[in-house]
Amino acid sequence: MPVPSELDRLRVVLVSARNPLNIGAAARAMSNFGFFHLRVVNPYPPAFREARSAVGAADVLARAELYKTVAEAVADCTLVVGTTAVRHRDLRQPLRRLEDGVRLIRKVIRTGPVAILFGSEKVGLSNRDLSHCHWLMHIPTREQHRSMNLGQAVAVCLYELVRKAKAAPKLEKARPAGAGEVERITALLFDVLLASGYVKPQSKAVAKEKLRRLVLRLNLPAGDAGVWLGMFRQIAWRMRAQGSEE
Amino acid sequence: MPVPSELDRLRVVLVSARNPLNIGAAARAMSNFGFFHLRVVNPYPPAFREARSAVGAADVLARAELYKTVAEAVADCTLVVGTTAVRHRDLRQPLRRLEDGVRLIRKVIRTGPVAILFGSEKVGLSNRDLSHCHWLMHIPTREQHRSMNLGQAVAVCLYELVRKAKAAPKLEKARPAGAGEVERITALLFDVLLASGYVKPQSKAVAKEKLRRLVLRLNLPAGDAGVWLGMFRQIAWRMRAQGSEE
Repeated sequence: MPVPSELDRLRVVLVSARNPLNIGAAARAMSNFGFFHLRVVNPYPPAFREARSAVGAADVLARAELYKTVAEAVADCTLVVGTTAVRHRDLRQPLRRLEDGVRLIRKVIRTGPVAILFGSEKVGLSNRDLSHCHWLMHIPTREQHRSMNLGQAVAVCLYELVRKAKAAPKLEKARPAGAGEVERITALLFDVLLASGYVKPQSKAVAKEKLRRLVLRLNLPAGDAGVWLGMFRQIAWRMRAQGSEE
Repeated sequence: MPVPSELDRLRVVLVSARNPLNIGAAARAMSNFGFFHLRVVNPYPPAFREARSAVGAADVLARAELYKTVAEAVADCTLVVGTTAVRHRDLRQPLRRLEDGVRLIRKVIRTGPVAILFGSEKVGLSNRDLSHCHWLMHIPTREQHRSMNLGQAVAVCLYELVRKAKAAPKLEKARPAGAGEVERITALLFDVLLASGYVKPQSKAVAKEKLRRLVLRLNLPAGDAGVWLGMFRQIAWRMRAQGSEE
């Protein structure tokens, strides 16, 4: 069963995974369904070492890329999707059922890389991790037992992606800005807001997450990102210059 | 997400599972997707004990039923579906892609229990196990890496079952005979064929499997099974009686 070349643009991102068996299982499911770009953010180091030495999905694991932060891991992606079991959490992003989410991913992946983020076994994705996501996706599990095993969740999501791979839509859209560009814009804007006193130093962390979501919701086209970057860079420079004048 | 009551008629049957983690993972996926009838055939005993003591899907595991043979495990089922990775095997039954298979399961499960069989981690279902199946189902994995992890395969199959649970068709059909009845008919007919010399003693095992598939393909309605049983019982008795007269 050939997977369309667009699907090769998918990045599976495991954030803070702790169990080597789960990392191995995620890699195996990727190999089963024809996905080869595994990115591992800040894993529990012995877990990653042990997973790497495991057999099975050796290829995928050998090529896995290690990152310190979610921001770096998704920098080249035009769409970042978080997965969640929706447990007692005040979600600030749109939440889509797996099948609906995958329909959207199929559209966007024609224009550039897409990342699907999976959180750690115990707590899932943190609010900070989630703030990097354009929207969230959940597998339709039972209310009384929502939380899936990590390896199984990866398998189910990837299955849904290849289930009718041939049904991928043919529409071409303007390429959205990459997450790296969006993050640079966010960072610049944040500095500006902090310097401006709009953001209070004591609420920096929360403000940064709010801002990131705000910028993501712009759905910036790639062609415009440079312009925005240039504008904010200029503002930031101007404010720094003024600060030193005072 | 409520699972229609018909889906409660599903039996997940693990045949000769060897790894307690996989048994536990299968049970967890069942609990996630709202399936509660786990049947375990001839597991590696320490694996089953260890899986039972694991946390997570405790309910499903505590209620799991232990069987010595596939025949006993599927005796009350009107449809028995085998899963396979289709590796170098001369399949004698119809093979359906997961999505198409599930569409059929949805129809039949309205009339009675349905079993999905999963084989052992190393070798899958044996030809003998497969001979109990009406047809086979495969997950659309990549040709170069077909074989999935057991727990992940169970998760993907169950996900497909609940994916659009509300789309279950409303058609009522005549209830097919249970696998137990079919097996009794097969056994009686086999004795008759053996006694008649149709089946040679040296090819007993293969002949039994062929016969089982033959009887399954009849798709006997439940109402007729008793009649067939009665007929073969009579023939068998007659042959035995004649044998003792000679």
